[in-house]
Amino acid sequence: MQSLHIVSAYDEELKYLSKRIAAMGGHAERMVEQSVLALVNADPDLARKVVEDDAILDQGQREVDDKAILLIGKRQPMATDLREVIGVIRISADLERVGDLAKNVAKRVASVGDNSMQPASLYRGLEALADLALTQLKEVLDVYASRSVETIGFVRDRDDQIDAMYTSLFRELLTYMMEDPRNITPCTHLLFCAKNIERIGDHATNIAETIYFIVTGEQMPVERPKGDKTDRIVIPAR
Amino acid sequence: MQSLHIVSAYDEELKYLSKRIAAMGGHAERMVEQSVLALVNADPDLARKVVEDDAILDQGQREVDDKAILLIGKRQPMATDLREVIGVIRISADLERVGDLAKNVAKRVASVGDNSMQPASLYRGLEALADLALTQLKEVLDVYASRSVETIGFVRDRDDQIDAMYTSLFRELLTYMMEDPRNITPCTHLLFCAKNIERIGDHATNIAETIYFIVTGEQMPVERPKGDKTDRIVIPAR
Repeated sequence: MQSLHIVSAYDEELKYLSKRIAAMGGHAERMVEQSVLALVNADPDLARKVVEDDAILDQGQREVDDKAILLIGKRQPMATDLREVIGVIRISADLERVGDLAKNVAKRVASVGDNSMQPASLYRGLEALADLALTQLKEVLDVYASRSVETIGFVRDRDDQIDAMYTSLFRELLTYMMEDPRNITPCTHLLFCAKNIERIGDHATNIAETIYFIVTGEQMPVERPKGDKTDRIVIPAR
Repeated sequence: MQSLHIVSAYDEELKYLSKRIAAMGGHAERMVEQSVLALVNADPDLARKVVEDDAILDQGQREVDDKAILLIGKRQPMATDLREVIGVIRISADLERVGDLAKNVAKRVASVGDNSMQPASLYRGLEALADLALTQLKEVLDVYASRSVETIGFVRDRDDQIDAMYTSLFRELLTYMMEDPRNITPCTHLLFCAKNIERIGDHATNIAETIYFIVTGEQMPVERPKGDKTDRIVIPAR
């Protein structure tokens, strides 16, 4: 009975940590959505809200970390159970970082300024990029809830789409900067926003790799191709 | 005797992990140094070497992770011992990321192209920024070796210096971009290089926080001010 009791207390504590991860994931998704909305609508109030909301993820990560380490020390889990707890530590770190990236997008809203200066297609491009990154994050968190790692292949495909879209935005932004020096400041901030959103997709992929590791005990097969090719973009001035 | 034997085997395994961290740290430092050297001297061969060398850190992190998790499962460490192993997992993740950032600087060398186009002061600024970030990384790894966390206050001060220097470089780069559209492509890549170097300093600070946690079991006091203020920079075109 004693051992059953311990096992069940352990399960309860683990379930609590999983619930915290789900809550942090939902919070991170909302921050990403709202940061891009604030950018597209040049909405400083919404941007300020996103910046403030980041503290919740910071605090969430600290709590999950502390509880996870206590849990390992107290229950001394083995094999899958240990991987679950280590996984929780890793995923909460990725979600905290997603929050930082959303906050960074929000903090640039004021510097981008009057967004009627830039073509609407740029903002549609950023929205589309954020949609892809958010879908990636949501589906990965669904896999975390269901542990259905056999479906996890979608992550690589969407990674490729995110990278292709980011590359095309990067080119477009450089082109606008060359057309008119007044575009340089806002488009530089939009470049960093695009980069931040692309990084959110990377963190979603990290989370997918962690889930794969939790379930299988193995590293996810096939090195993920580092897709950001913008380091090679050169646009000659006319 | 049995227990003494177990303790000593545990110490050996932990010592091995610490040694791997020290080796990864040395490797990451070299990658950062060489990536900036490749950038300043427009040296594509050295840049290629840095890109290739990154695989060693990726592999190092995977090995440290696997061994650390095995060690927790096998030896079931408590308190400080457990924190040591969790710390190793965190630090190796930060060092792997430092390698990624150095690789990203190296990958931009070709796109920056002929560096006699930009003023030498820009490259001196990037070198000075990298020197600061590297000093931060080296001193933090020294603290890891000595566990002398009472000296760790230097981390905050240097963080502030790194942020101030990055902000000034960001302004300078935007200004050059406005002066001549031919500067836009190379200076955009240099902007991302500067950002990558600034992030290396952040990872050094993360490592300092992990060491503080290992030794004391507490979070490092006082929220670190997020120093990158470049999100607020607006330079009006003339």
